[in-house]
Amino acid sequence: MQHKLKIIPLGGVGEIGKNMTVIEYQDDILIIDCGLIFPDEEMPGIDVVIPDMTYLEQNAGRIRGMCITHGHEDHIGAVPYAMERFRCPIYGTRFTNALIRHKLEEHKLTDVEVIDVDPGQAVKLGCFSVEFIKTGHSIAGAVAFAIRTPVGTLIHTGDFKIDLTPIDGEPIDINRFAYYGSKGVLALLSDSTNVERAGFTQSEKEIGKTFERVFTKAQGRVIVATFASNVYRIQQVADVAIEHGRVICFQGRSMEQIVKFAQELGYLHIPTDKIVRVEHLKNLPDSMVCVMTTGSQGEPMSGLFRMANSTHKLNVGAGDTVIISASAIPGNERGVARVINALYAKGADVVYDQMADVHVSGHACAGELRLMLGITKPKYFIPVHGEARHLKMHADLAMEQGVSKERTFIAHNGAVIELSARKGVMNETVQAGSLMVDGLQNIEDVVLRDRKTLSTDGLVASVILLNAETGKLLAPVEIYSRGFIYMRDNEPLIAEASELVYETAKQFEEKGKGDYSSVKNTVKSRLKSFLYDKTGRTPMILPIVIEI
Amino acid sequence: MQHKLKIIPLGGVGEIGKNMTVIEYQDDILIIDCGLIFPDEEMPGIDVVIPDMTYLEQNAGRIRGMCITHGHEDHIGAVPYAMERFRCPIYGTRFTNALIRHKLEEHKLTDVEVIDVDPGQAVKLGCFSVEFIKTGHSIAGAVAFAIRTPVGTLIHTGDFKIDLTPIDGEPIDINRFAYYGSKGVLALLSDSTNVERAGFTQSEKEIGKTFERVFTKAQGRVIVATFASNVYRIQQVADVAIEHGRVICFQGRSMEQIVKFAQELGYLHIPTDKIVRVEHLKNLPDSMVCVMTTGSQGEPMSGLFRMANSTHKLNVGAGDTVIISASAIPGNERGVARVINALYAKGADVVYDQMADVHVSGHACAGELRLMLGITKPKYFIPVHGEARHLKMHADLAMEQGVSKERTFIAHNGAVIELSARKGVMNETVQAGSLMVDGLQNIEDVVLRDRKTLSTDGLVASVILLNAETGKLLAPVEIYSRGFIYMRDNEPLIAEASELVYETAKQFEEKGKGDYSSVKNTVKSRLKSFLYDKTGRTPMILPIVIEI
Repeated sequence: MQHKLKIIPLGGVGEIGKNMTVIEYQDDILIIDCGLIFPDEEMPGIDVVIPDMTYLEQNAGRIRGMCITHGHEDHIGAVPYAMERFRCPIYGTRFTNALIRHKLEEHKLTDVEVIDVDPGQAVKLGCFSVEFIKTGHSIAGAVAFAIRTPVGTLIHTGDFKIDLTPIDGEPIDINRFAYYGSKGVLALLSDSTNVERAGFTQSEKEIGKTFERVFTKAQGRVIVATFASNVYRIQQVADVAIEHGRVICFQGRSMEQIVKFAQELGYLHIPTDKIVRVEHLKNLPDSMVCVMTTGSQGEPMSGLFRMANSTHKLNVGAGDTVIISASAIPGNERGVARVINALYAKGADVVYDQMADVHVSGHACAGELRLMLGITKPKYFIPVHGEARHLKMHADLAMEQGVSKERTFIAHNGAVIELSARKGVMNETVQAGSLMVDGLQNIEDVVLRDRKTLSTDGLVASVILLNAETGKLLAPVEIYSRGFIYMRDNEPLIAEASELVYETAKQFEEKGKGDYSSVKNTVKSRLKSFLYDKTGRTPMILPIVIEI
Repeated sequence: MQHKLKIIPLGGVGEIGKNMTVIEYQDDILIIDCGLIFPDEEMPGIDVVIPDMTYLEQNAGRIRGMCITHGHEDHIGAVPYAMERFRCPIYGTRFTNALIRHKLEEHKLTDVEVIDVDPGQAVKLGCFSVEFIKTGHSIAGAVAFAIRTPVGTLIHTGDFKIDLTPIDGEPIDINRFAYYGSKGVLALLSDSTNVERAGFTQSEKEIGKTFERVFTKAQGRVIVATFASNVYRIQQVADVAIEHGRVICFQGRSMEQIVKFAQELGYLHIPTDKIVRVEHLKNLPDSMVCVMTTGSQGEPMSGLFRMANSTHKLNVGAGDTVIISASAIPGNERGVARVINALYAKGADVVYDQMADVHVSGHACAGELRLMLGITKPKYFIPVHGEARHLKMHADLAMEQGVSKERTFIAHNGAVIELSARKGVMNETVQAGSLMVDGLQNIEDVVLRDRKTLSTDGLVASVILLNAETGKLLAPVEIYSRGFIYMRDNEPLIAEASELVYETAKQFEEKGKGDYSSVKNTVKSRLKSFLYDKTGRTPMILPIVIEI
């Protein structure tokens, strides 16, 4: 009897980020990707958010391995957190693995098995065989997976675009997808990020024309900010810069780190004599300098941010040309605009994506997604890597190309999709969700709610002292505040508040000691109304009662 | 002897928002616009930000009047705050004034003089004569000003676009700008918002085709979210809806309010029998219903937000079509995406600006800005209504069209531009800046800094009790926290922290009483290091010392 194949997304559906998918058949579990998502404005103080991995911890003994499509944070960022919870070998291409190993070292996880696999090779993991297929994306070493299972073959595209003139000269291996399509694909899991956009994504090479034009015109230094992991972009800029007689200086810790890996592994080919350290720039005329830096998202502390805010040793200003070779990730728009404005204010020329073709996406548009559906001809379709609207649109696309509605699954994290050759269903659910990591601990929702209140109206603490034996009020009430109003300017208000708390506590004194929670609650609600009437604000109230 | 004309922007240069410009000649001051800006993520808890009006308060006796270009918040939002500080008559078109009067009533300012002026009319204010010139913008009643002064004529465009097929049938009065251009314009102050975009902004009428297509296809209800003040958009949607046999239901307080004003004043022409209340919708088939609502920016509590989150009486879902007829204002992108995702998740179809032409900007693109420069032929040019990059690009544009560099002023708020027929200089500065309004008070920077710290890592308070006479420590130290970690889950940590504070305070006991600030500082720094080591976080520390 044939058993059922289970596909369980633990992250990455209904969101763009923290991608993680479980493939399961009888005793064997295979994990695809293990990413994080950066917190949004609703999660103040949180560093990163990772998938809830309870299901995997509970089934740790059945995990045969983890295959990684590529080295972006939303695909590898949670690997160290996973390896603290369970262990299994990790498979990726050489570049992906260089990034993973670096991450594991930072977390002092030196005994994890990380195995290099080249595109075209396959690895056997329990009952599964996983073939790595070369794709194209905005990072080197990206692959899709053809996963042979006892029920049929799954194709997981990873993040991809169809670039027929890629910088590395090795286009996506369409023939391999076609091969599986002709043989029969049970299910396709495909990248939904750019499904809103019609047509095909531009080739990386297209934007070379803009670089050519800007470098030809530039008199002073040219500073290019882009994603550190976009090795193809870095190669392209370096080629143009060298052609124009410039040397390259890399700035930003992640940029320097990744360039080192990529040069060593042969993903990047820049003559070492053309790479100079920042200290040497002062000996060179500006017209011979190209700086490549992090900070294309306006991140505080990044290279570009510090240049724009005059806290970087490169004193960027009049005569310099800055190219921001990226588009703002949703949520970063204002930060990027602030950096652009600061650079303009310093007199630099800035070229950015609203003005010129300085960036192309790494994700397939609707046309490419249709092509992928057309050549793989899947029986079942599961759109992944998308928010609700992307998954819905991608499902609609698949249906237009002949996948029936019953065989198209718009999943949520934790959903269990069971496939057999005859039938596919989605009804069961496993534990899934978000773990917020702040510093070294996970964070509870109640703490986050407190932070939101604190951030908008601050805190007022009142200290009430009671005699432990008699329950009598001991001293006048002290009021402290932070983030509410400036206390020195508001002494009469503070005095009045103190008086109010004292009077409130006094009423309870007569009723006998002991019932501190009602003292606290009454103080809280009276103080809240009082402060709202006086200031229009509702700070968090922290009533402290101390018995002596 | 001729005196100098002064132009002093108090807001709106180097930023998009809180527009306010002072025009001054000898004893006469004229104010153009009086707007607010909404706070960004760096200002938690702040309601609105208004210009620092100190300069005007100090010169209140010389203010002859305030002329308003149009009724958007960034042009009228600070009017009530200004009228609490000084008084002068306010001049605007009828629609602008309806919005201003409503705002003044809300602030219980019923004795302010607000005077209606029609486009084509001029008002005399001291030595100035201000002609109102019809323009086009995304709100009804928008005008530019031709300000005749003893030194020459200033043109202030306000926010404008050149729409030759506007919904109200009355295009921008180009001939009037040309008239002044031929006579001689001393200086042009022109809208810089869209200078990054080449060409001409599309006509409002263009997007009518999209509405036509969506309404033709829609089977269920059609829900259109747009800006409440965009009367032209509302008219256009209403026309298409009625043509398709639908009635209109308005949702959202500001939408209902503005529609009422606009209908009364003749800016909006919707047959009253086609407007229905939400309670009556249940008696109508879905195919006869069009709802127009607020919430196009994803604002919490707006009509559309509540529909998407199932807290609105219209239970939006499968069969319904939602059109978001707006683009996200920078900073709102994630909020808008969340609403779209929620609507998709409920099964509704959503049409939004990444997918279809459902919105056009109300601001002139580079081509229109060139046209304005070309016909007014100003001697001096002052780009306004833009962030640093917009002002720089707009200045470059003017120089390309023949305004010399010395006659082009990229101003900052508070800059004083002095013009005479022979010479123009910018060097003096008056007090200018931002006033943050939260509830009923202005907010100090120190309070805002505290809020930011509180929002990321929360607060830990420690209470130390001392005998007032002996300086001896009285009780064990109590620790309280909010927004830091969940106390119940971390009792050992709290106990350790309490012990640490106790030991620290104990050391000071021996040195004699009185020096509480050094006790506090030492407690603060030790507790901070301790908590950082244990949790990787740095909450705000509030050390409380109480003498009994």
